Amino acid sequence: MQLFADYRDFVGTNLERFFKTTIVQTPRMLVGTDCLEPGQQQPTHQHAGRDKLYLVMEGQGRFTIGVETRDCGPGELIFAPADQPHGVLNIGNERLVMVIVMAPEPG
Amino acid sequence: MQLFADYRDFVGTNLERFFKTTIVQTPRMLVGTDCLEPGQQQPTHQHAGRDKLYLVMEGQGRFTIGVETRDCGPGELIFAPADQPHGVLNIGNERLVMVIVMAPEPG
Repeated sequence: MQLFADYRDFVGTNLERFFKTTIVQTPRMLVGTDCLEPGQQQPTHQHAGRDKLYLVMEGQGRFTIGVETRDCGPGELIFAPADQPHGVLNIGNERLVMVIVMAPEPG
Repeated sequence: MQLFADYRDFVGTNLERFFKTTIVQTPRMLVGTDCLEPGQQQPTHQHAGRDKLYLVMEGQGRFTIGVETRDCGPGELIFAPADQPHGVLNIGNERLVMVIVMAPEPG
């Protein structure tokens, strides 16, 4: 298990879907990154019984949580409570990089 | 519950101990900030059954997890698994600001 990590070591590109990594995983929490190239989208989805937090590190995203939509950039937190549909579209000209946390982990 | 938030709205000073806020809290996850002025310390402590993640947003901290100590700055993640002693000292000249996540929340 990684006790110390730099999010910049977990950034990348996946042109087919979007890029995601896991940094730390326990039964209680999963920590990782989601990276979207300009125009890429994470389609609306939901996690049964699990909260998800996004923290934007780089870029600009249009986030939807339930019926709310908001454009967010670095330093902004987006919280999807358990069972709430959520998704994000990269609306900027650079890679959108987010640290994400899910609790409990999707075991 | 806050679905969207900017961590900069949850930054402050507490000269007696250190500054902490809660941004979001559910039975599964607590999201907040910890802010330490230069020289301030969060003494080593542990959370029974709960993981804690720090993500440094501003400043420089010396983090201890169990027997490991590491100096970390913006963009670095520090993970304290459940029941592991952890603490942090602000070793820089500016405020140390961290977004923190605990799972499950300390109900």
